[in-house]
Amino acid sequence: MSDVIIAGIGQTQVGEHWDVSLRSLAVKVILAAIKDAGGLRPQALFVGNMLGATLSHQAHLGAMLADFGGLHLGDGMDQKPLKQRAGIEAETVEAGGASGGAALRQGYMAVASGLVDVAMVVGVEKFTDVVGPEVEAALATVTDGDFEAIQGLTPTAQAAMLARRYIHEFNMPVDGLAGFALTAHANAAGNKNAMFRKAISLEAYHKAELVSDPLNMFDAAPNADGAAALILTRADLLPKDFPHSQVRIAASASASDTLGLHNRADPLWFAAAQVSVEQALRKAGLQREQVDFFEYHDAYSIFAALSLEAAGFAPAGQGWKLAADGSIGLTGQIPCATLGGSKARGNPGGATGVYQAVEAASQLQGRAGSNQIAGAKIAMIQCLGGPAATAVTHILEKVRD
Amino acid sequence: MSDVIIAGIGQTQVGEHWDVSLRSLAVKVILAAIKDAGGLRPQALFVGNMLGATLSHQAHLGAMLADFGGLHLGDGMDQKPLKQRAGIEAETVEAGGASGGAALRQGYMAVASGLVDVAMVVGVEKFTDVVGPEVEAALATVTDGDFEAIQGLTPTAQAAMLARRYIHEFNMPVDGLAGFALTAHANAAGNKNAMFRKAISLEAYHKAELVSDPLNMFDAAPNADGAAALILTRADLLPKDFPHSQVRIAASASASDTLGLHNRADPLWFAAAQVSVEQALRKAGLQREQVDFFEYHDAYSIFAALSLEAAGFAPAGQGWKLAADGSIGLTGQIPCATLGGSKARGNPGGATGVYQAVEAASQLQGRAGSNQIAGAKIAMIQCLGGPAATAVTHILEKVRD
Repeated sequence: MSDVIIAGIGQTQVGEHWDVSLRSLAVKVILAAIKDAGGLRPQALFVGNMLGATLSHQAHLGAMLADFGGLHLGDGMDQKPLKQRAGIEAETVEAGGASGGAALRQGYMAVASGLVDVAMVVGVEKFTDVVGPEVEAALATVTDGDFEAIQGLTPTAQAAMLARRYIHEFNMPVDGLAGFALTAHANAAGNKNAMFRKAISLEAYHKAELVSDPLNMFDAAPNADGAAALILTRADLLPKDFPHSQVRIAASASASDTLGLHNRADPLWFAAAQVSVEQALRKAGLQREQVDFFEYHDAYSIFAALSLEAAGFAPAGQGWKLAADGSIGLTGQIPCATLGGSKARGNPGGATGVYQAVEAASQLQGRAGSNQIAGAKIAMIQCLGGPAATAVTHILEKVRD
Repeated sequence: MSDVIIAGIGQTQVGEHWDVSLRSLAVKVILAAIKDAGGLRPQALFVGNMLGATLSHQAHLGAMLADFGGLHLGDGMDQKPLKQRAGIEAETVEAGGASGGAALRQGYMAVASGLVDVAMVVGVEKFTDVVGPEVEAALATVTDGDFEAIQGLTPTAQAAMLARRYIHEFNMPVDGLAGFALTAHANAAGNKNAMFRKAISLEAYHKAELVSDPLNMFDAAPNADGAAALILTRADLLPKDFPHSQVRIAASASASDTLGLHNRADPLWFAAAQVSVEQALRKAGLQREQVDFFEYHDAYSIFAALSLEAAGFAPAGQGWKLAADGSIGLTGQIPCATLGGSKARGNPGGATGVYQAVEAASQLQGRAGSNQIAGAKIAMIQCLGGPAATAVTHILEKVRD
């Protein structure tokens, strides 16, 4: 296995890009990542996207983005002259909200194996091409259609049931999850690509309207448009004058669980998240205590609590306390959502896992500005599809300044 | 790189499975492939699916099928006892009609790299959950939405334009493509999993109604329900009493092209198909002449002609003659669609590439019954998304009886 280095990153601001198409969002970050990588060009494209066919009426994103991103095959790639220029290999990877993490894992696998020298991973999602009910219907396709969606269950209602059960099992106060939103919004203030760049108060949290009891507006991340991109390669292929710290993907792991909560022995335990974290730590040869910060997937505040527990940063039923007592803050014991997380950076669906990697890389490269985690060397990022029905965990490590 | 062996295959009949859900179709073939592989169980699942979210209102198929297929992690996989059983890593791979081929490539990559010991590839599609106009709308999402679908172009109309142009450029008679349908239907008669098990006459072809001038009903493959599965592993992990001939994946290659035909220098040249064939032959260290049969992707008869040309089996403008003169028949120079192809086996969308691999493996293992290609050792299979906007080519080789 070769070491896989993050050679370039790109991202758009997350938000409501009414005037920018899914295609254009993606092309912007393809060009940005190539520029950031000093012109290094990929031979393979892995697109993380959850709902292009339903939200944007556009499937087959791989070939489309290879074309519009200008990702053609080099002249030396083929035996004979072509009548016309073909594009690089390209495909979409989908695993619900974990699509971006799953695409990153495919890009990692392609480069680590030596089958591909330079891979590009693009995460992209566009929610503003369709209106409210269509968005809910599209999102319901990532739950179990025959057993959940058909009963009217939406992802938000599903998360609310988890939170209600958590309160019951663990005697958490009803505002026990507030710390996740407060941390996210405080951190997003320093991220120019975040959707909501403003800290919120506990009072604001208490005043917020319920979206699905007991979750209020600040417990649910806003679905939003966005795209992010990474270029991955081997260390020996980096440009000689590569201007950034070298960050490698020290481990990649993924696991799955039932889509339906009713099929789980313990709905309050994210088994797939646990497995993917333990596999990733083992592959990286690291202890949990060596992780400097953790980008969890806070599509809902209750997910953040359960992810901290599954990852072993807190015992079952205690994850929320790390938010309540400041442990997940930028200078806390295990900083989380360091650039705002899904809650305040915004939740760009299948692009989320790529945003997490871009943000973690920028921290490890010392490019996180006012949100910089001092001396950060090891990051864990975890992308979830549904309530950890898919969980993809990567560990990123700074290997050279 | 490790040699990747096809250890197990499974498939449903292709057809209109009104009473079987997408989930059930997939579970059937997961169980069948595990049984065919002597009980070998996968650690990773790659699902080829094109339109689950639109046609079946179900995305996130990876986690769902890992769960319902019983693909849980083994007991020795984790450091600590789990509170509940997690599932193997799983994801969907989408590249339009080439989704199955792209999923196969991911499964190949996972095993060849040594990152995964045993991988499962499942192709599944269900067209009969929604009615006509919804199917057309869903299929239009694999064309270029902003430049083609928005003008009302459907994949069938797009193929018809190619056929019209081909007739004009190369002076092909208007029934010049008939041989593709006749060959497909003749071969499907011997395939118990085919949708149409009946040979057709040239007279029937002439009488068929136009679907989009100049293409008639026999020039367009029928969209249909189906699922197929493969288990891939390394030779040293095969069960000791493995009962089948060993077939390896000798090469895997993929390339892309513009979604929109208007962006191509020469619309009658499948550049991505050419590139993926040339890369595959080079990787396998084989000459084109050593290929014993070719499973092209005949979603439309004109695609078959253009694929034969791009693959180098015929010069530009001459591919149709191989069908007209019998060269693609079971005993011809280069047998094609040996078990009916998309035209007569049926076209199960994103499952197609996995069906092609299952069929080619059954030929190379001597399990093709009355359609057996005598002495076949090397197969080329090629899966297309749209008019070769994605082209994925694999070469399969029998390595041991």
